[in-house]
Amino acid sequence: MTDLAKALPAVLDKIDANLDASLERLFEFLKIQSISTDPAYKDQCRAAAKFVADDLAGIGFDASVRPTKGHPVVVAKGRNGGGSGRGKPPHVLFYGHYDVQPVDPLDLWETPPFSPRIATTPDGRKIIVARGACDDKGQVMTFVEACRAFKAVTGTLPLPITAMIEGEEECGSAHLFGFVKDNAAELKHDLALICDTSMWDAKTPAITTSLRGLVYEEVRLTCADRDLHSGLFGGAAQNPLRVLAQILGALHDKNGRVTIPGFYNGVKELPKGIKADLAKLKLTPKAFLGEVGLKVPAGEKGRMVIEQIATRPTAEINGLVGGYTGEGAKTVIPGKATAKVSFRLVGNQDPKKIRDAFRKFVRDRLPADAKVEFSNFGLAPPIQIPFDNPALIKARAALAAEWGRKAVTVGEGGSIPIVADFKRVLGMDTIMVGFALDDDRVHSPNEKYDLASFHKGTRSWARILTALAG
Amino acid sequence: MTDLAKALPAVLDKIDANLDASLERLFEFLKIQSISTDPAYKDQCRAAAKFVADDLAGIGFDASVRPTKGHPVVVAKGRNGGGSGRGKPPHVLFYGHYDVQPVDPLDLWETPPFSPRIATTPDGRKIIVARGACDDKGQVMTFVEACRAFKAVTGTLPLPITAMIEGEEECGSAHLFGFVKDNAAELKHDLALICDTSMWDAKTPAITTSLRGLVYEEVRLTCADRDLHSGLFGGAAQNPLRVLAQILGALHDKNGRVTIPGFYNGVKELPKGIKADLAKLKLTPKAFLGEVGLKVPAGEKGRMVIEQIATRPTAEINGLVGGYTGEGAKTVIPGKATAKVSFRLVGNQDPKKIRDAFRKFVRDRLPADAKVEFSNFGLAPPIQIPFDNPALIKARAALAAEWGRKAVTVGEGGSIPIVADFKRVLGMDTIMVGFALDDDRVHSPNEKYDLASFHKGTRSWARILTALAG
Repeated sequence: MTDLAKALPAVLDKIDANLDASLERLFEFLKIQSISTDPAYKDQCRAAAKFVADDLAGIGFDASVRPTKGHPVVVAKGRNGGGSGRGKPPHVLFYGHYDVQPVDPLDLWETPPFSPRIATTPDGRKIIVARGACDDKGQVMTFVEACRAFKAVTGTLPLPITAMIEGEEECGSAHLFGFVKDNAAELKHDLALICDTSMWDAKTPAITTSLRGLVYEEVRLTCADRDLHSGLFGGAAQNPLRVLAQILGALHDKNGRVTIPGFYNGVKELPKGIKADLAKLKLTPKAFLGEVGLKVPAGEKGRMVIEQIATRPTAEINGLVGGYTGEGAKTVIPGKATAKVSFRLVGNQDPKKIRDAFRKFVRDRLPADAKVEFSNFGLAPPIQIPFDNPALIKARAALAAEWGRKAVTVGEGGSIPIVADFKRVLGMDTIMVGFALDDDRVHSPNEKYDLASFHKGTRSWARILTALAG
Repeated sequence: MTDLAKALPAVLDKIDANLDASLERLFEFLKIQSISTDPAYKDQCRAAAKFVADDLAGIGFDASVRPTKGHPVVVAKGRNGGGSGRGKPPHVLFYGHYDVQPVDPLDLWETPPFSPRIATTPDGRKIIVARGACDDKGQVMTFVEACRAFKAVTGTLPLPITAMIEGEEECGSAHLFGFVKDNAAELKHDLALICDTSMWDAKTPAITTSLRGLVYEEVRLTCADRDLHSGLFGGAAQNPLRVLAQILGALHDKNGRVTIPGFYNGVKELPKGIKADLAKLKLTPKAFLGEVGLKVPAGEKGRMVIEQIATRPTAEINGLVGGYTGEGAKTVIPGKATAKVSFRLVGNQDPKKIRDAFRKFVRDRLPADAKVEFSNFGLAPPIQIPFDNPALIKARAALAAEWGRKAVTVGEGGSIPIVADFKRVLGMDTIMVGFALDDDRVHSPNEKYDLASFHKGTRSWARILTALAG
C-alpha cells in the first residue's frame, strides 16, 4: 500500500467532517451571478473567476485570473510534494467552468436563482438549489474540496494538478480554444479530468467515454424593411416567419431523420456488443421521459431512447422569435425573424461541414425578398475515449469503491467542446466523471444538485486521485 | 330627366359657391379633440357628437345624441319631400364616425393637430391639415355638405336619409354592434353608404366592393413540462418549436396556396370584366412593394398583386416565440411555444369554419406528447358587394360623371367590421365611396385631406344621391 493509499481514510474522514464548511464555500460561489452569455453580467463573471482563483490559492495552488477577449480563464498550478513512493505520478489537468446559464423564465423559480438553499425532495433527498448548483459550480467544487482535504491531511496534493476553470462554457467557449493553443506548454500534461457529467442513476456512478459534438447557429431572416399591416400587405409581402417555419419545418423527415444532405456522413452504427450492453440498461421511454411530462421518444424511428440521446446526431430549434408576441392580437407581418438552431454530432461528423451544409440548406430554400444572415455560437467535434485507457480502468475501480457498484461507461448527449482540443492540441485523453442526476434541472428553473452528489462526489475524487497517483 | 336630375346643376353650383363656408364648418369640427381611445377626451367626444347632431338638425334632420356605455352615437333622420317624380326613392343609411386617432408623437406634427389649416403641397395641391381632416371628419362632411346643398336648392333631401355617426370607430366600435342590433327597426333601410375609404389615385375615383374578413388565432403548444437541456434530452424529447415549424410551414404549398382542407370554399373567381379592369390599373410589384424594400409578390402564383392583397384569402404568421431568444447561445429544448396566426377572408368564406378547419389542421398534425390550446382574437366575415348591385352601377356612373374617369371597383385588404353587421343584422348591402389618398397620413402625424377630395367629394355625393333617387 502506498503512503497515499494509507492516508486515504483520513482524507475521506476530513471530507465528511468539513462538509458544512464545504457547503458554505459552495454557497458563496453560487451567489455570484456569472451568466456568461449576457454582457450585463461581465463583472459577475470576473468575480466568479476571482473566487475560484482565491479559493485555489488558499490550498496552495499558484493561481491567476488570465484575461481573454471574453471572460477570463483561471489557471492554477498545484505541486505534489511527493510521498507516493512509486515513481513519478502523472500530472493531471482539471477542467471546469465557473459560468452558468441564464435564469429565464425567472417566474418559474421557486426561490431566487442566486440565493442558494438546502431543500428536501418529497422522497427525502437533501438537495442544493441554485443556478449552477450542479452545472458546473457544484461539480467543480467536488474536485476542489477533495484537493483541500488532501492538503489538510497530507500537507500536499496527491499528484501534480493544473486546474483550468473557464467562464464561457455556457456560451460556446469562444476564447478557450485559442487560450489552450496559446498556452499549450503550460497545459499539456498526462491526462485531463473533467467533472461536468452525470451518474447513471442516483446509486450508479458513470464515466462518460463519448460526447456528442455541437454546431450552434443563429439564423436571422429579413424581408420587408419594416413591420407591415397584414390588411394592407397580407398576401403580397413575404413573411419571414412563414419562410423560417417552412425551412425549419423541413429539417426532419417523418421518421425523425435530419434531411440536410450529407448530415449522416461519418455516423457509424454501434458495434453489436456495445449496442447489446446499452439495451441491457433498459432505459425505457417512460423512465427517461416520464419525469418531464413526456412519453414517446421523438427522435429517429427504430432507435432506442439511449441511442437517440447519446449515440445519434440531432437537429433542434432552440429558440425562435418574430412578429407580435404580446397579449391579444396585432395584425402585423414582421420585417424580420430569428431562430437558434443546434446540432448534436457523433462519430466522425465534421462540425464545419455540418454548419456549411445547414447554411446551404437554408439558402437553397430562401424565396425572393428573403435575406439571411448567420452567426455561429458553437462548433465542436464529437469525442470517443478508448475503453482500454489505463486511467479509465483505475477511475472505474475507484468509483466502485465509493459507491459499492460497478461504474458504467456511457455516451453523453451533450458536448464539452474543449475535450476535442485536449486530444487534438494537447494530445491528452480526458476522463469525465460527474455526479449530476437526470432530475437536476440543469439549464432550467430550480436547478439543483443532490447533497449526496456533492458529498460522495468529493469522496469519489479523493479515491480517483489516489488511484491515479498510485 | 327627373326633377332631381334637373336640379343637379344648381346643386353643384351651390356646392362650389359655398365651399368657403363648408370649410369653415369642417374646421370647427376639426378643432374638437375627439380622441375616443383616451378617456381624458370623453367630453370632447361628446362635443363632437353634439356638433354633428346640431349641424344635421340645421338642415332639417331629426337628430339626437344617443348614449351608449361608451361614446354616444348620433342618429339623424332626414325626410325626402318628394319631387323625384319616379315612385318611391330608396331610404339610405349613412354611416361615419366623429372620433379620431390619438395624435402622438405630437412633436412630429408641423402645426398643432387640432388647429386645422390650409397648406399647399410641393406639387401645388391645396390640402386641409389636421387630425381627422380625412379620417373621418372630412369624409363625413362631404356627404353632409351635399345634403345641405340639396336642401338649399330644392328645399328637401333628394331621398330619405338616416345618418348614424358613431364615436368609437378608432377604438374598436365596441358598443356599435349592440346599438345596431338594439335599434335595428330604426336603422334597417334599403342601402347603406359609407365615406371612409380611398380613391384609386388622385384622379381616379373608386368604390370599395369587398372587404376581407379576419380570423385571428393564438396557438399555444406544450410538450415537456419544463425547458430541457438539448445535450441531455436532444433527440428523444419532443420540441414544440419543431412541431410548430412543421405545422405552420405546411400552411402554404409551393405555389403559395393555403393547404387547409376546405379553406377556399366560398372563394369565387372574379368576373372577367372586373379582372380586366383590375389589370388595367397596372399596379406593379415594384410600385406596391418597392416602398417597403420588397420586389416579388409572395402570394398565390399566377395572381396579380392587386388580387393577392384585395381579392384573395391569406394565411399569415403574425408572431411566433419559443425557447431562448436572447443574445448568444442556449442549448435549450423549450417546454412551450406560441404562435399568432391570422387569415384574411374573401367571398363567402365562413370565419367560424375557417377557425375550426385551422384548429383541426393543427390537431391532425400534432405528434405524441404535444398538447395544444387555442384562443381566438378575431372572427369577422368578408364582405362582397355583388358587381351587379343596381346602386353600385348607379354610383359608378355618378362618380364617372364627376371625375371624367371610370370609377374602379376595388377590394380593400383590411376589414370595416360594421359592414358585416349591416348585412347580417340589417340585411343591407353597403356602397363604400371615399376620397382619401394614399398620402393622407391617416393615423399618423400631419394627417391631411386634399381640398379637391373635399370639394369634388361633396359634388360626387350630390351626383350619387341624385342617381340613387332616380
